[in-house]
Amino acid sequence: MLKLYFSPGSCSQASHIALEEAGAAYEAERIDFGRQQQRSAEFLRVNPKGRVPALVTDRGVITESPAILAYIGQRFADTPVGIPQDPFEFARIQSFNAYLCSTVHVAHAHKRRGSRWADDPAVIEAMTLKVASNMSDCFDLIENTMFSGPWVMGETYSIADPYLFTFTSWLEGDGVDPRRFAKVYEHSQRMAERPAVKKVLSVVAG
Amino acid sequence: MLKLYFSPGSCSQASHIALEEAGAAYEAERIDFGRQQQRSAEFLRVNPKGRVPALVTDRGVITESPAILAYIGQRFADTPVGIPQDPFEFARIQSFNAYLCSTVHVAHAHKRRGSRWADDPAVIEAMTLKVASNMSDCFDLIENTMFSGPWVMGETYSIADPYLFTFTSWLEGDGVDPRRFAKVYEHSQRMAERPAVKKVLSVVAG
Repeated sequence: MLKLYFSPGSCSQASHIALEEAGAAYEAERIDFGRQQQRSAEFLRVNPKGRVPALVTDRGVITESPAILAYIGQRFADTPVGIPQDPFEFARIQSFNAYLCSTVHVAHAHKRRGSRWADDPAVIEAMTLKVASNMSDCFDLIENTMFSGPWVMGETYSIADPYLFTFTSWLEGDGVDPRRFAKVYEHSQRMAERPAVKKVLSVVAG
Repeated sequence: MLKLYFSPGSCSQASHIALEEAGAAYEAERIDFGRQQQRSAEFLRVNPKGRVPALVTDRGVITESPAILAYIGQRFADTPVGIPQDPFEFARIQSFNAYLCSTVHVAHAHKRRGSRWADDPAVIEAMTLKVASNMSDCFDLIENTMFSGPWVMGETYSIADPYLFTFTSWLEGDGVDPRRFAKVYEHSQRMAERPAVKKVLSVVAG
């Protein structure tokens, strides 16, 4: 059985929703960031990077959201999160997900994870100043050049949808009104109606 | 025909090498960062993010290195960069590539691209201080927990190899001696002997 290590509110939510959408048999184990559990010897044996998500399979552990999402999509091909056979369609999804992980997540991380890139508390504090405008720029680009609608890729739901939904949920905390991005905001409301999303949100909150 | 937009020394080198390894018919067009060509109206029509690499296909443009690399690997399956059919093996490759794009590239970018995350010149300057130790930590993790050898994934060459090779080439400029990472350093020397790598390096330098 698959096992997902997650933390509430983190990007692991995307993989969590994807597993639900896929109808996968899995268990989910919470890693408590408040108690620095991601730095415990036990968890570092699962993921030496000390991050979530980490998906344990019968073959080994997979880390990094885009890799886990594509794996779930390939393993559960005939489900709403199945990966399209066409390489170009898959590349569109992967391009979107890579932008989220390499640019949008990093923009967001400068709010609370600035210590990754500086030691001086004043510098870490200064890094928070540009978070709102960076997140806003990222979502402008998503809204205007990437998002097809009604789902990220167009008519077909994909692994890109739970991933975007997770990032959209970070906007308010980053000082950005999500209503500024009409299509993306509607998307987040559409996502919230899906049974898989409702289930994950209730489990994570519980 | 495929068309790759690249910039010498950037992460586009990985896609460039992958196209050569695949024996793909392609053309390569240099984007001159010195003249801010990535911000030109012409290039922003190709990639609104103003970044390289961008791969133009007959279906549309693909951006982001991990997406382009996987696309090349799927389009040219029976070549040294072909994607394995097994979802877990593919996930291992994708996990490695996602780590490079979302963590290692970001660690490196704080040296010269700090203006992405701050406006104050003193803060931007301060961000450079942790680049060497961050890159060193990333490569320790790669050397000790991710790199199988002789290639990244083990006995089989993959799209992860040109991507790692590109990042290894950044170490000296980031103040880190690549010889500290014995397996990764040997890998970079092994890569430099490959005809595809020699060709791309000569084209880029020319």
